[in-house]
Amino acid sequence: MGCRDFFAVCLLLVGAVHATGKLGYPAPLLGETSPGSVWPQPHTVTASPQLYTIDIQAFRFEYLQTSQRCHVADEAFKRYQLLISRSGIKAKFHDKYSTSVISVLPVMITGPCEDMPSLDMKEGYILDVGSNPLLNASSVWGVLRGLETFSQMIWEDPSGQAVANKTHIIDEPRYAHRGLLLDTARHFLPVNVILENLEAMAYNKFNVFHWHIVDAQSFPYVSTVYPNLHLKGSYSSLNLVYTPEMIAQVIEFARLRGIRVVPEFDTPGHTYSWGLGQPGLLTTCYTGGKPNGDVGPINPTVNSSYTFIKNLFTEVRGQFKDKYIHLGGDEVPFDCWKSNPNITTWMAAHNMSGDYAKLEQVYIQQVIDITGAIGFSYIVWQEVIDNGVKAKDDTVVEVWINNHPEVEMAKVTALGYRTILAAPWYLEELTVGEDWKKYYSYEPTNFNGTAQQKALVIGGEACLWGEYVDATNISPRLWPRASAVAERLWSPETVNDVDAATPRLHQHRCRMVQRGIPAEPLHPSYCVFDWMNRK
Amino acid sequence: MGCRDFFAVCLLLVGAVHATGKLGYPAPLLGETSPGSVWPQPHTVTASPQLYTIDIQAFRFEYLQTSQRCHVADEAFKRYQLLISRSGIKAKFHDKYSTSVISVLPVMITGPCEDMPSLDMKEGYILDVGSNPLLNASSVWGVLRGLETFSQMIWEDPSGQAVANKTHIIDEPRYAHRGLLLDTARHFLPVNVILENLEAMAYNKFNVFHWHIVDAQSFPYVSTVYPNLHLKGSYSSLNLVYTPEMIAQVIEFARLRGIRVVPEFDTPGHTYSWGLGQPGLLTTCYTGGKPNGDVGPINPTVNSSYTFIKNLFTEVRGQFKDKYIHLGGDEVPFDCWKSNPNITTWMAAHNMSGDYAKLEQVYIQQVIDITGAIGFSYIVWQEVIDNGVKAKDDTVVEVWINNHPEVEMAKVTALGYRTILAAPWYLEELTVGEDWKKYYSYEPTNFNGTAQQKALVIGGEACLWGEYVDATNISPRLWPRASAVAERLWSPETVNDVDAATPRLHQHRCRMVQRGIPAEPLHPSYCVFDWMNRK
Repeated sequence: MGCRDFFAVCLLLVGAVHATGKLGYPAPLLGETSPGSVWPQPHTVTASPQLYTIDIQAFRFEYLQTSQRCHVADEAFKRYQLLISRSGIKAKFHDKYSTSVISVLPVMITGPCEDMPSLDMKEGYILDVGSNPLLNASSVWGVLRGLETFSQMIWEDPSGQAVANKTHIIDEPRYAHRGLLLDTARHFLPVNVILENLEAMAYNKFNVFHWHIVDAQSFPYVSTVYPNLHLKGSYSSLNLVYTPEMIAQVIEFARLRGIRVVPEFDTPGHTYSWGLGQPGLLTTCYTGGKPNGDVGPINPTVNSSYTFIKNLFTEVRGQFKDKYIHLGGDEVPFDCWKSNPNITTWMAAHNMSGDYAKLEQVYIQQVIDITGAIGFSYIVWQEVIDNGVKAKDDTVVEVWINNHPEVEMAKVTALGYRTILAAPWYLEELTVGEDWKKYYSYEPTNFNGTAQQKALVIGGEACLWGEYVDATNISPRLWPRASAVAERLWSPETVNDVDAATPRLHQHRCRMVQRGIPAEPLHPSYCVFDWMNRK
Repeated sequence: MGCRDFFAVCLLLVGAVHATGKLGYPAPLLGETSPGSVWPQPHTVTASPQLYTIDIQAFRFEYLQTSQRCHVADEAFKRYQLLISRSGIKAKFHDKYSTSVISVLPVMITGPCEDMPSLDMKEGYILDVGSNPLLNASSVWGVLRGLETFSQMIWEDPSGQAVANKTHIIDEPRYAHRGLLLDTARHFLPVNVILENLEAMAYNKFNVFHWHIVDAQSFPYVSTVYPNLHLKGSYSSLNLVYTPEMIAQVIEFARLRGIRVVPEFDTPGHTYSWGLGQPGLLTTCYTGGKPNGDVGPINPTVNSSYTFIKNLFTEVRGQFKDKYIHLGGDEVPFDCWKSNPNITTWMAAHNMSGDYAKLEQVYIQQVIDITGAIGFSYIVWQEVIDNGVKAKDDTVVEVWINNHPEVEMAKVTALGYRTILAAPWYLEELTVGEDWKKYYSYEPTNFNGTAQQKALVIGGEACLWGEYVDATNISPRLWPRASAVAERLWSPETVNDVDAATPRLHQHRCRMVQRGIPAEPLHPSYCVFDWMNRK
């Protein structure tokens, strides 16, 4: 009854039952993998069955004499020492192995310290676990990734001792932009929930938090220049807003984990809530020659719109440290513009009567010029390029429309723009069963194009739009489904076997649960450290 | 970007945006309803705009002089006094209304006290809120439902005062069996999670917890007669089992809320985990005349199977207080039986060669005879009747197969059996968007049959099978989606307008959140008491 024989879920169930039959009790019903396996899969792993005891209580990280000493690493050492000591392993300490106990992991940073993660940051590292353990990286960002990998390699042997296999890992990400989009406009997300998911992002080696902070439904961003935006446009200016202090907290928390925070201020559409606090910003819609009470996208024909954008984005520039801002530019409806006689007149005067794509282009062109002048680089949704806007060379185009993403990828890269792919990874699209396999199996370079075009693909993003999620359900809906995207974007293209990934992802899901992230189950199974109490 | 114009979700989003336009800020984007509205909708509500102040801090319930005094009600008074005092309303107390303040709700129980909820319990009540407030019911179960209704009627007026509208309510459920199935075999559910959902069931006037306690994947039920069942068959006998004490705690918690606990021990299929602790119980499967290492359903041809069932169910009978047990009987695969030469011989000797439905019937017939002799009444899945088993008159048949439930409903009721409907309400079937509307709109009596047949429909069940849920995600997946089923089963058939229900369900969802149930959002919106911290 837990399944219907004309249902995919049923096959999974039968498969699971047979798995029990084959594996016997008490193996999880998800196949088997070696303990201490890493997610996402590192580039090169040379492991041996030889085990080293890890003294998790006394464990610490230490710089090599010749290493750079960086604040970001200092903070990471503390975090991972705590994480390792709290790994839940009973750690009866008895060195039963003929090898030395590892109680220190030496760390070597060869390059200069960096304070802010960026699109150009180096995340590669070399990790040796053995008689001469060492974590070696050219930058602090590589150290962060290596610490995460090391923390995942520790497991509890049958005698209850913390151990790790003798292993040599050479690792670096396949893509530089590995993002997760969260939407705080359809529903407000409390800061603690954002921080919880930044933590989970670090566990999965994501490196960009795409913060879709405002939209038509609400404007929780507290602007000091235009305070009416949140006072009139948020769901509640009392407790459902992001103050400058909260935003600084999110950026700092992310920075220490090597995660960039890229805010999105989507215009000219998706701006209903903006208009509540900024009269005159949005287009007045007409019916029968009279205003009908509705409003449309930002009015592109009046200078006041651009002055507003310039002032707002200048404030944003001073607050968000990343070089990039996301300008949106998607789904602009033309009906309200068409209904407005002043816009009709303006378009006639500018020789573009009836060409509303051209009008949109005029708006976006000015906004990107303003944004560039402020010192931002920018990401835009694909429509901006589809509408023929000329963007700066360092523009990143995000492909989201899901009917033929491979066609759009070919088109945008042919124009010479760097692209990130989101289309296959809209996590709000729910089906029964293991949809993570679908996310996992999508190959970003699977489009017709030259090697040069494919080199323009710099990554992708898992997106969880906010229509149906808030603090009550967002974390289990994200994890481990987003983990599938994380491995696709970090690991080599050849790491694409769903069956091999399944038990490793189950192990990773249980690891997240043990670390306090309520990651949902893959299918019938249990974790050694099960989620006993959600509250 | 939060939606795709070729997607249903997109229409919802646009709708939501327009709603903002029409309603203006800060109304939730879900339409409007009167505050203090009740879910599920009572049978008859006569409300007036006149408001009464509720002194929520000093508030208490008191028996009328002539009322029965019952322990179940005493406990409920304490729970609801606490719930009302913690309703989150600031309760600045200033009687600005020209009417008396209500600080006591008198309660009258006209019938005898009952200790155990049952299929026959009376849940009707009459509630007056006004100058002479009174909750009147013939049984303590009606009092429980009335107390829940009263607690939902209290709201915070603009001045911050707790108020309720002058109201006269005559209420009783449409159906006697309003169940929720939870599956603790595909994933273990900690007791605190079961209790949280029993609490939520009471908030939604569900009255049956259908506990699918064991299945092929695991056997968490601790039997004192056959301890190997959980020692060998559970995911972990250390922490992923239900001891007699835990089961007693669940039954008592449910009893005090007027919720029956009906355990399901599904046989002869779905029993893989049973066989791990009870060698010889399951059928040995053969390939090429030799045992192949696999096992099938319970072996129906040996007496030891029936002795085992009798002993186990006798223990269960002493533990679970409800008159009913669920015997399962679904999805029995025949291939293993067919492969077994001893079964072939036995069937030949009993003149049923090749008729495996008959063999299944022989098994089920004996099991229901044993179960009846022990003193249980029983519920069975539809296949049992489809296979021609003769069941006792008080048998309840549960219809779950979703291709043509209306055909099955007609068939089972034509045979004179009482039926409960589960088919349209399998909550693990996920789609993007507001699937609660689909659950809400399904009419249980929508099949071809006489009035007499339709009178045999005694209710239904929302089912959440456990393949993809555990403590990390079960509560937000259940609520408020199961609430749609709750209203369908409690309220009159005529209460079926999805648009009218939407804002009321949003209000109910926010009420559950305020009470500590992480009920997920319906669509873009917020709650006055939003879920700020899941942990």
